[in-house]
Amino acid sequence: MRDAFITGVSMTKFGKCPDKGLVELAVEAGLGALRDSGQSDLKVDAVYVGNASSGQFHHMENLGPIVAEQLGLLPCEAERIENTTSSGAVAIKEAYRAVAGGFLDAALVVGVEKMNHMAPDEVTQIIASSMTHPTGETVHGASMPSLAAMFTRKYLEHFGLTTRHLAMVAEKNHGNATLNPYAHIQKKVSIEDALASHMVADPLRVTDCAPITDGAAAVLIQSTNRGPKPGVRIRGVGHSTDRQMFYQRREEYSIQAVKEAGEKAFKTANLGPKDIDVAELHDAFTVLEIVESEDLGFFPKGEGAKALEQGRTKLNGDLPLNPSGGLKARGHPLGATGVAQVVELVWQLRGEAGQRQVANPKTALACNFAGLGNSVVVTILERS
Amino acid sequence: MRDAFITGVSMTKFGKCPDKGLVELAVEAGLGALRDSGQSDLKVDAVYVGNASSGQFHHMENLGPIVAEQLGLLPCEAERIENTTSSGAVAIKEAYRAVAGGFLDAALVVGVEKMNHMAPDEVTQIIASSMTHPTGETVHGASMPSLAAMFTRKYLEHFGLTTRHLAMVAEKNHGNATLNPYAHIQKKVSIEDALASHMVADPLRVTDCAPITDGAAAVLIQSTNRGPKPGVRIRGVGHSTDRQMFYQRREEYSIQAVKEAGEKAFKTANLGPKDIDVAELHDAFTVLEIVESEDLGFFPKGEGAKALEQGRTKLNGDLPLNPSGGLKARGHPLGATGVAQVVELVWQLRGEAGQRQVANPKTALACNFAGLGNSVVVTILERS
Repeated sequence: MRDAFITGVSMTKFGKCPDKGLVELAVEAGLGALRDSGQSDLKVDAVYVGNASSGQFHHMENLGPIVAEQLGLLPCEAERIENTTSSGAVAIKEAYRAVAGGFLDAALVVGVEKMNHMAPDEVTQIIASSMTHPTGETVHGASMPSLAAMFTRKYLEHFGLTTRHLAMVAEKNHGNATLNPYAHIQKKVSIEDALASHMVADPLRVTDCAPITDGAAAVLIQSTNRGPKPGVRIRGVGHSTDRQMFYQRREEYSIQAVKEAGEKAFKTANLGPKDIDVAELHDAFTVLEIVESEDLGFFPKGEGAKALEQGRTKLNGDLPLNPSGGLKARGHPLGATGVAQVVELVWQLRGEAGQRQVANPKTALACNFAGLGNSVVVTILERS
Repeated sequence: MRDAFITGVSMTKFGKCPDKGLVELAVEAGLGALRDSGQSDLKVDAVYVGNASSGQFHHMENLGPIVAEQLGLLPCEAERIENTTSSGAVAIKEAYRAVAGGFLDAALVVGVEKMNHMAPDEVTQIIASSMTHPTGETVHGASMPSLAAMFTRKYLEHFGLTTRHLAMVAEKNHGNATLNPYAHIQKKVSIEDALASHMVADPLRVTDCAPITDGAAAVLIQSTNRGPKPGVRIRGVGHSTDRQMFYQRREEYSIQAVKEAGEKAFKTANLGPKDIDVAELHDAFTVLEIVESEDLGFFPKGEGAKALEQGRTKLNGDLPLNPSGGLKARGHPLGATGVAQVVELVWQLRGEAGQRQVANPKTALACNFAGLGNSVVVTILERS
């Protein structure tokens, strides 16, 4: 097994993108990553597209070859990876393995999703169809917010927390997003704003849920750190899968697959939670940032909210979480999210994150998952 | 890079399966492959599901975790690979690399598709949406048969062939399928039957087109040849991508990506076309078997039909093609097809193919592709 480096990154401005098509978004991000890698003699061996539901959103499949062709990279390998909202991170995993395993020298990963051409209730229904269990949850009317609401209520009650803690996640991540020109929602949200916002599924308010976002992100992975930018090495990737139906999960207050994916990634990287300087977590719902910060071992179980209260997870804290604004405020274009997390971390490790730059990070972790954690990927990066 | 072996294979009976769900088909094939591997202490590290369009056919995504859970394999990695009709072969490629690259010890690949719950015109429309170019072909009313018909007409005229040659492919493959208990269509078709059958898109008759088939197939890939069955080693996998829009292809009478994928696979395997003893080719339309038999280097360009006439590609010929009956008659459940090809070849290499067993094959090749060859995977296997 050899090293693999991220040598180019890019993302589109996240948000509502009525003027750009699905493929156009993917191509914009892909070209950006190629340009960012600064290599005039680059030969790309493969294109991996992470996308959750182009069939249902666009009556279009086969994005791998379509995107590769539009990028002018033919002939090469091209395919799409689908793992709902973890499609992006799984695509990175496969590209990383192909490069580190010696099968390819350069692989481009593009994550993309476009949903805002549809009405929000249609989008919610497609997301429910793909992320909740078809016969055990979807048919009973379960949607992602409704399941997340039940989990949130149980978690808050068990650890004696309140919705004020959720609002603190929203406040922090919306604040970070105001410093991120690529973020979907660039407005400050105070704790009071959050607690007074529209109720979606009690106890979740609109400020507790990621928005419906269009966008694309891309990373170029190579076997050597070619190009002018500071090198970022992929130290480890862990992937694990849990039961699809939420009520059958093995743990009530944790996401087991986060623990397992984290352990695998740390083991491969030969690092531990204390070694991580900055992380992007999957905060599709605010409570998830707190839960993941515990299940990844950053804080003891039940103490994630305390760390949040103490400001430890702010940009200037000892472990900044979601400097980009997270899914919450940077936005959550399903298949693009896992790639966008890595793009943000590469910017942070290179010192290119502008006003939201955290202090001199050397190692970084991304946690991206499907649904409410039925499939979880943890990726660990290091400035080399 | 280390060796990778196929240690277990299985498939469901292909056909119309109204009594079995999509996941049920996948699980039946998956369990069959695990059972076939004969290992009581087996630990499966990952499940790769090859599937073309579960979102559009079933409003269901995320088949990786769903199938892994139903197979009782949690916790493990799980994901879906989508590359339209080459989804199955691409899933095998990724699983092979994960094992050969040293990332996993055992990976299960399941290819699955179920379409017959829909009306044929709906199925044709979804297939067109996923396999023809959305803005360059689909919107103009192009379907797969219409594009294949244009290619077929040009190819036949250029090489002075007639529809009788197409009928010979149908006769051969339907004959092989009568010896395959897993085949969708198990009835002999004479050349005269074929030439008198219903016209689909001139010059393609119904006997020139693969049927709409439900089914699943599975292979288990491991780093060592554990289990009681004769070992089958994956010698090489080649993957290449061509322009999506058919009229923009670089060659008129060849499928360029077949050539490229074949060359890559032969190079990795350190073998040539003359070393192959039996092959499964992607005969979604009859002409494709002839074209691929040339583009893979088995016969000189323009002489594939002559080899067919001479009986060289029959079960008792010097290079039997599609002993299973091919997509034509074994059937073509999109995402399952690439896996079913490999299942057939493993049976052939093990000497387990019953009445359709070819004489003592040592090496075998599968060619599986997306659409009319915009993405092609060639896999070479060897009895070890």
